[in-house]
Amino acid sequence: MPEIQPYQGTDYDVIVVGAGHAGVEATLAAARMGNKTLLMTINLDMVAFMPCNPSVGGPAKGIVVREIDALGGEMGRNIDKTYVQMRMLNTGKGPAVRALRAQADKHAYHAEMKHTLEKEPNVTLRQGIVDDLIVEDGVCKGVITNTGARYSAKAVVIAAGTAARGKIIIGELMYSSGPNNSQPAMKLTKNLEKYGLELKRFKTGTPPRVDGNTIQYDQTEEQPGDVEPNHFSYETPDENYLSLKNQLSCWLTYTNETTHKIIRDNLDRAPMFTGVIEGVGPRYCPSIEDKIVRFADKSRHQLFLEPEGRNTDEWYVQGLSTSMPEEVQQKILHSIKGLEHAEMMRPGYAIEYDVVSPYQLRPTLETKLVKNLFTAGQTNGTSGYEEAAGQGIMAGINAGLRALDKGEFIMKRSEGYIGVMIDDLVTKGTNEPYRLLTSRAEYRLILRHDNADLRLTDKGYELGLISQERYDAFTQKRQTIKNEIARLNTVRVKPSDAVNAYVQSHNEKPLKDGVLAADFLRRPQVTYKDLMQFIPAPDVPLDRREMEEIDVQIKYAGYIKKAEENVAKMKKMEAKKIPDNIDYDAIDGLATEAHQKLNKIRPETVAQATRISGVNPADIAILDVYIEQGKIAKVK
Amino acid sequence: MPEIQPYQGTDYDVIVVGAGHAGVEATLAAARMGNKTLLMTINLDMVAFMPCNPSVGGPAKGIVVREIDALGGEMGRNIDKTYVQMRMLNTGKGPAVRALRAQADKHAYHAEMKHTLEKEPNVTLRQGIVDDLIVEDGVCKGVITNTGARYSAKAVVIAAGTAARGKIIIGELMYSSGPNNSQPAMKLTKNLEKYGLELKRFKTGTPPRVDGNTIQYDQTEEQPGDVEPNHFSYETPDENYLSLKNQLSCWLTYTNETTHKIIRDNLDRAPMFTGVIEGVGPRYCPSIEDKIVRFADKSRHQLFLEPEGRNTDEWYVQGLSTSMPEEVQQKILHSIKGLEHAEMMRPGYAIEYDVVSPYQLRPTLETKLVKNLFTAGQTNGTSGYEEAAGQGIMAGINAGLRALDKGEFIMKRSEGYIGVMIDDLVTKGTNEPYRLLTSRAEYRLILRHDNADLRLTDKGYELGLISQERYDAFTQKRQTIKNEIARLNTVRVKPSDAVNAYVQSHNEKPLKDGVLAADFLRRPQVTYKDLMQFIPAPDVPLDRREMEEIDVQIKYAGYIKKAEENVAKMKKMEAKKIPDNIDYDAIDGLATEAHQKLNKIRPETVAQATRISGVNPADIAILDVYIEQGKIAKVK
Ligand SMILES: Cc1cc2nc3c(=O)[nH]c(=O)nc-3n(C[C@H](O)[C@H](O)[C@H](O)COP(=O)(O)OP(=O)(O)OC[C@H]3O[C@@H](n4cnc5c(N)ncnc54)[C@H](O)[C@@H]3O)c2cc1C
Ligand SMILES: Cc1cc2nc3c(=O)[nH]c(=O)nc-3n(C[C@H](O)[C@H](O)[C@H](O)COP(=O)(O)OP(=O)(O)OC[C@H]3O[C@@H](n4cnc5c(N)ncnc54)[C@H](O)[C@@H]3O)c2cc1C
Repeated sequence: MPEIQPYQGTDYDVIVVGAGHAGVEATLAAARMGNKTLLMTINLDMVAFMPCNPSVGGPAKGIVVREIDALGGEMGRNIDKTYVQMRMLNTGKGPAVRALRAQADKHAYHAEMKHTLEKEPNVTLRQGIVDDLIVEDGVCKGVITNTGARYSAKAVVIAAGTAARGKIIIGELMYSSGPNNSQPAMKLTKNLEKYGLELKRFKTGTPPRVDGNTIQYDQTEEQPGDVEPNHFSYETPDENYLSLKNQLSCWLTYTNETTHKIIRDNLDRAPMFTGVIEGVGPRYCPSIEDKIVRFADKSRHQLFLEPEGRNTDEWYVQGLSTSMPEEVQQKILHSIKGLEHAEMMRPGYAIEYDVVSPYQLRPTLETKLVKNLFTAGQTNGTSGYEEAAGQGIMAGINAGLRALDKGEFIMKRSEGYIGVMIDDLVTKGTNEPYRLLTSRAEYRLILRHDNADLRLTDKGYELGLISQERYDAFTQKRQTIKNEIARLNTVRVKPSDAVNAYVQSHNEKPLKDGVLAADFLRRPQVTYKDLMQFIPAPDVPLDRREMEEIDVQIKYAGYIKKAEENVAKMKKMEAKKIPDNIDYDAIDGLATEAHQKLNKIRPETVAQATRISGVNPADIAILDVYIEQGKIAKVK
Repeated sequence: MPEIQPYQGTDYDVIVVGAGHAGVEATLAAARMGNKTLLMTINLDMVAFMPCNPSVGGPAKGIVVREIDALGGEMGRNIDKTYVQMRMLNTGKGPAVRALRAQADKHAYHAEMKHTLEKEPNVTLRQGIVDDLIVEDGVCKGVITNTGARYSAKAVVIAAGTAARGKIIIGELMYSSGPNNSQPAMKLTKNLEKYGLELKRFKTGTPPRVDGNTIQYDQTEEQPGDVEPNHFSYETPDENYLSLKNQLSCWLTYTNETTHKIIRDNLDRAPMFTGVIEGVGPRYCPSIEDKIVRFADKSRHQLFLEPEGRNTDEWYVQGLSTSMPEEVQQKILHSIKGLEHAEMMRPGYAIEYDVVSPYQLRPTLETKLVKNLFTAGQTNGTSGYEEAAGQGIMAGINAGLRALDKGEFIMKRSEGYIGVMIDDLVTKGTNEPYRLLTSRAEYRLILRHDNADLRLTDKGYELGLISQERYDAFTQKRQTIKNEIARLNTVRVKPSDAVNAYVQSHNEKPLKDGVLAADFLRRPQVTYKDLMQFIPAPDVPLDRREMEEIDVQIKYAGYIKKAEENVAKMKKMEAKKIPDNIDYDAIDGLATEAHQKLNKIRPETVAQATRISGVNPADIAILDVYIEQGKIAKVK
């Protein structure tokens, strides 16, 4: 066989490897900041491909989408253009756990994202496989493709996803493959070991798809979308919202004892349990066989039947992720109400892939070992499109800043779920696919879906990722909210027949004296809209989102204030930077475990150090004193 | 590694392997004839995928699409729903070479076909890889998949295309792959050798795709679609036709001496010429490097820039198929007018794949060695979507008939291009990818695009593939045409000022006496529409297609008649069946070459025998006498 002949390709500012959900955000961010950006991916027909559930958002994840949007990212706009159903979840619960979730038209989502990339002036989108990096003296200077091209760049982002030495597993069957029988990338991650990076093997799985013509919908419960408009992006106007009749429904069914017996009877053929799968699977997205084993006493599990798009009859069986043999999968399906005659169109499968252990990263997602090399998405041990996209935009921004020689952008835990996720990853590493959950955030009352724009649009604007027009509209919104809250703290609601009829209809005590409008709004049942019946309207009428924001900010003011005080305290610790060149061996008195962990993770602030498991308050005190004493070079 | 455990899947009537253009037609035909049909394919997102040019039709091929449509196939309807441009080619030339050609929205074409399969009641569409057949005593009884499933069937069609042990080649780079970086099928064709089938390696290639935003269109010539409506399917009404402003244009440019020099300078790296590519490539769809070498004196070659769809900026560079190294491809592109700054999105590549030498097939596309096993499409050594689809529907029909225990369907050379193609394949085999050309048909004046429905709708109807409604409309059309032609042979055009003004405006001599309307129409410039100004209208006004048909039938009546006489002569020879069990060793006097060839091909009729190269008239005479003498068992 002839040797591949290397050749010098074009120079770029930033190169992104992999056009999954992480890679596309990274590319668009870097390019929109003014960098000539190359995006290389194995198959152009799989740009922003959803190998698993055809949906975006949900608890915590939906908030990430809005954070990405506030930073000028694409996921929100893209799903707003291509959803087939939209639902606000947990509307009955507190504002911290409310979240938007959309069913996507899987193909349209891909096509729209690809087209956006094509239209972006600074982006070169190219099909190809990256085999290796160009690294000189610990600095990444570009990539090498399988066709021999050497592209140089000032910064490189790897977002290789599950294609990284991917291996598909279905029962006893195993073969090298990317998701959905695509070509895997066999060389790139392996080559990262050359540069000292430590790899892990993780696994994830997907359920079978069934032919919608063979589902008995009347045996299941319909889950329609919302009538009330809602979108992910702050740019999408309400009038774009699809009427309910233009949305598609999902359908709810359940596993049952028969299902569970089939699975138990075949556990000896489950690759999860026979030792065939070496990769570690996701705890929060377990396969059905895993659920049956771990929750042996549960008599049923929810399954949602979700359409894969408008122009296809394939349906996704959410909750039935599995790598059982195909034969068993079919039996499982047929044991389920509504699926008794379902034709399986694609079997479920597990996929094992390479992961770069994320403790090796800085909070900018740059690797500590190789300068100018960033990693994002599944490659960093997470699972989920939103988690990938959130890291993607952060890596893209930081790679873009590096190429522009312009400092860095780190999101704090108090600023967004993206900040929580990245801090978790780089501080704690992860031993299993990491998924965002609201419970991971200590400030979840601050990190709401309704205020993602208030939290992050300024940053997006500073980075050049938010248009002036949008920013002007945003600052006006912010001012309107502020003014109206101030007004509600001066205007009073006076007792009147109308007010008291309203109050009593909600089973509350009638007003005797006037109350501040803000206090009246604080009552659980009262909405801003209701309140407006009893006090004069503001000069400019508010829109839906402004009203929602005022509602939440006033109702939860007490809790929010407390959370903000905690954030302020933490800020002091965040401000205490630990110098790059700190020598932990030189610090007396650190416990052995703390010493080891600090050396491995090399936290960037004292606050980050406190979050490392095994580093105790006593160790922090010692570290703190050591830094304060200035025994080391001045903090950067 | 654990062993795959076999299991018994559902029983089907017909199983089709591969959902390319051949496989989908085979599946739909078999299913619509009433057979429970399984279609297995490697990737459901590549059903009816176009790995090469985003277009359907053209000379000969466009006629095949209409033949498929007349038999109740899907290709015509599908492209009518998804084209972005429609053009009638060669309108200035004779009716035999006129042909319709459409640019397709590549994704929409796939999605629409997939959805049609999903909606077809008798079809089960499933993602999976077939590894082997179930063959007992020379009879194919089903297939075995990589997941261990054993599906039984009364007939099996293999339409594995270029995925059959596919190998992608770009310059020095080579790797196992199906088209466009998909999973190849590594086992199935290899296993066919076990059953005695002989394989070949062929190759084909595709050009690079470029980013439409980087093309300088003003440096090229616009090629818009037609204003006049035209569709492939007899079912698509004119009112569905896209207005020109809703069609997309193609753009014409050329290679030049610089391009040719780049190629010549790099021939030592062209896998075509360095011996790297073992497979035989298509003579009629050569790569650009092949054209430069073979037509060294040509100073330029045409290149058409064709859009890949509406929602993408990828453009296909027709005429620039190549497997040169990526680096060279880029230089080639940049040497071309309009493409000086074109960004390459995907490199061109060659692909090598397994082919079943088609002399091993009967005219029904059943293999001679394995009963109930049919092969179709690229697997049989052809190239082109239409060639594949034409074989697909024939194999599907014959597999369907077999499953129903109902005889067989063979298309004669005089009945359609599909008949010509299959007869060529099974009679002559092929040493290179076979492509349909009008020059392959000896009766091309009969095998026109305008009369495909007249030639084949009866057959489609008999097979149960044409609805009653359509058939009624068709028989009415046929009668209308007949009646009107009869009328034109009685009604006379009388000399008048109007007639003579018309005649003279076409530079012809004025009429002195009346002439038969039919004779008047025979004049080259006169159209049926014009004629109607001078004679009374028929009772029922004719539609566009009926008028076109009358025009052609009357204008070319003389030639058509001659051709039909030849067909009639040939029919006698077609009627002379050669018995299955003929023993060529027992025939005295055959030349050695004839003896060998007859033994290898085992033609089914004397007519077919005459077309075998190396079988001479003397041999035919001997064979004829031998059969006439009834020295062998009675003809079936
Ligand atoms: C079968 C399956 C099941 C899943 N199940 C779940 C689930 O249940 N829950 C959940 O939250 N998440 C699940 N996921 C994960 C989810 O799909 C990913 O988290 C998300 O897609 C990650 O995005 P990414 O951008 O990091 O990677 P990907 O979306 O995988 O994209 C990576 C891209 O990089 C390309 N690439 C890789 N290597 C190279 C190279 N060397 N050169 C060029 N291009 C390259 C790939 O072709 C691909 O386009 C599943 C994934 C799969 C495949
Ligand atoms: C790179 C390239 C360039 C080409 N260039 C030209 C050209 O210039 N001119 C031209 O006329 N034609 C060209 N062609 C050929 C054209 O694409 C084919 O002729 C046409 O697609 C053949 O249709 P088919 O149905 O026979 O096979 P395909 O369209 O290849 O479909 C075969 C299907 O079978 C599936 N399959 C294969 N094996 C198995 C298995 N074991 N189990 C399950 N499924 C299986 C495959 O996944 C695929 O879906 C080119 C093809 C390629 C790939």
